[in-house]
Amino acid sequence: MTPKIAKFLAEQNPATPCLVVDVDRVAARYGALADALPLARIYYAVKANPAAPILSRLTALGSYFDAASIEEIEMCLEAGAEASKISFGNTIKKVSAIRRAFAAGVPMFAFDSAEELDKLAENAPGARVYCRLLVENEGAEWPLSRKFGTTLDHARDLMVRARELGLDPYGLSFHVGSQQTGTAPYEAAIGRVAMLFTDLAEAGIDLRMVNLGGGFPVRYRDEVPGIDDFGRAIMHAMTEHFGNDLPEMIVEPGRFIVADAGLVRSEVVLVSRRGADNPVRWVYLDIGRFGGLAETEGESIRYRIATAHDETGAETGPVAIAGPTCDGADIMYERANYRLPLALRSGDLVDLLSTGAYVSTYAAQSFNGFAPLAEHYI
Amino acid sequence: MTPKIAKFLAEQNPATPCLVVDVDRVAARYGALADALPLARIYYAVKANPAAPILSRLTALGSYFDAASIEEIEMCLEAGAEASKISFGNTIKKVSAIRRAFAAGVPMFAFDSAEELDKLAENAPGARVYCRLLVENEGAEWPLSRKFGTTLDHARDLMVRARELGLDPYGLSFHVGSQQTGTAPYEAAIGRVAMLFTDLAEAGIDLRMVNLGGGFPVRYRDEVPGIDDFGRAIMHAMTEHFGNDLPEMIVEPGRFIVADAGLVRSEVVLVSRRGADNPVRWVYLDIGRFGGLAETEGESIRYRIATAHDETGAETGPVAIAGPTCDGADIMYERANYRLPLALRSGDLVDLLSTGAYVSTYAAQSFNGFAPLAEHYI
Repeated sequence: MTPKIAKFLAEQNPATPCLVVDVDRVAARYGALADALPLARIYYAVKANPAAPILSRLTALGSYFDAASIEEIEMCLEAGAEASKISFGNTIKKVSAIRRAFAAGVPMFAFDSAEELDKLAENAPGARVYCRLLVENEGAEWPLSRKFGTTLDHARDLMVRARELGLDPYGLSFHVGSQQTGTAPYEAAIGRVAMLFTDLAEAGIDLRMVNLGGGFPVRYRDEVPGIDDFGRAIMHAMTEHFGNDLPEMIVEPGRFIVADAGLVRSEVVLVSRRGADNPVRWVYLDIGRFGGLAETEGESIRYRIATAHDETGAETGPVAIAGPTCDGADIMYERANYRLPLALRSGDLVDLLSTGAYVSTYAAQSFNGFAPLAEHYI
Repeated sequence: MTPKIAKFLAEQNPATPCLVVDVDRVAARYGALADALPLARIYYAVKANPAAPILSRLTALGSYFDAASIEEIEMCLEAGAEASKISFGNTIKKVSAIRRAFAAGVPMFAFDSAEELDKLAENAPGARVYCRLLVENEGAEWPLSRKFGTTLDHARDLMVRARELGLDPYGLSFHVGSQQTGTAPYEAAIGRVAMLFTDLAEAGIDLRMVNLGGGFPVRYRDEVPGIDDFGRAIMHAMTEHFGNDLPEMIVEPGRFIVADAGLVRSEVVLVSRRGADNPVRWVYLDIGRFGGLAETEGESIRYRIATAHDETGAETGPVAIAGPTCDGADIMYERANYRLPLALRSGDLVDLLSTGAYVSTYAAQSFNGFAPLAEHYI
């Protein structure tokens, strides 16, 4: 929790559940990544948190933007971003969305299939396109690999086809999975990208860009390597494979920029025991998997949880932690060995830390009648 | 698809993704359940679909309502329901919600823990309360058991305590899990409930109500037993255990009433192959797990899918089916052996059948920038 957030909570005592984001901290994280990878252009992954105060602040810092939809592109434009600094990074786009983005001046589009390439050639003629490769996601806590990307051979054919269709075969992308805690998947993927650069050069196609995706981890319950480790590993692999002739480098961080800047404040609705002898208490919060904590699915992302009882040195005990709805799937943590103070009661406040990413827009619009969480950007 | 929905789609050609619900069909399903269980009071589980046209129609038919939140209670009241016909069925309630419900005249509250009982005694003094038992969910496609309910022994103690606190220990409830395709779990649970009725009678507490929960299945991809089978099995078990002295019986159907009355129309955004030799196509729709199809998590609920190519007798092939977002978890079906026509292309319309339940309010408010699906009640 940043001092600014602590002050806001103390003074405002906002209704729960709510998300509070310190926009200064967003800027600091952007700066840390820029320092770690000075040669890379930062395309902020808007989907992580598209709030206008975040987009405006990043625009002022010179950020580029990776958009998942035409709606996100329009949010960036409204926040003052230039269209030339936006990439339409979703490999799955409606024709209508491609047309609107191209008309707005968005210069660059992702794809990973023949049908999408045909749609781009017809509706964004001459645009820069980059093909997403399928790479290993081992080590990622929120893997992406099955749904996106294609094989090296198929990508080669598609890039040749892109030129035939009058598009600009600009580069290649990959994504090692979100909350990726190892550097090896980046190094392996860069090697594969370099091979395809060489192959395509022999076919007369000179690629100019490597999109390294995002996935840089933040500290949730467990420690993670620092961003400098990733910067060093990436630059080492890039120079090893490309020598002095480095292509343009792009990164698409979302979680890394905003997660740590935000906190969800929640109220304990109920603390329950299944009989007097059962040591495990069930703690029900006023936010759950469908209220914004979508990434607790499969207990994948394990947030740190702070309570007012933590400071007293009071005893803790094992808990399962669930949301407030009548849905049996609305359980955040049952097997992840969470412990919370024995003094915790219905009505107490708890803070879920580093929840600035992939929370706000993910909340269901009216699940079990509950409104989505409130948002405060300070 | 009902004739009324077919006519609406043909004439209106609504923008996708959208949900279309035939409210006459909702009424027909209510009637079918009332015929199958004439001695039970039907408390419609509002969370399945809280749209005002549905609540109004059911109110006119004499339905009672099972609400998960104070917001759902208020929706029922706005639709014309009497407070006396509403049960606050969530075992997890904020004190503020209990107070507002009690003040509005809601007479009956669920609980399964000591702390909740204390909250009810203080904030809804003298109210009817019923305790939820933990029962087996085997055979259910969307199980509920871990999060809710308590043991028989604990429930006994809690009901004695309820009386001591000045509450009215009214009955017991259980839930065999949603989309429950077998009758045996109802029969087993009724036996357990009856045991506890006897135990508590010996303690001087005469319970008057059995809440059988919901869970009655609808036909998705696979056939399911008819509602009459469930009616017969339940009445057989009730008379076996209670003889002629039947308590009040309550059922809380949600899915059974509305699922079959609705359809989601979606557009194919992309059909993709991972290389020419791969027989599996990835079909990306403009609605996904975070756009309302939350129950496809773990491929649990398997909707039937209809396309315009189905009638031609054209060949089909294996597919994975995913949503339109950049999220790797936004995959509906990858292992469930879906097949779709080989002729399917980007821009085609597809219908997901029997999607009237647990879709509309479950849609994320702005996931990846996408607005929630539109809703049409006809």
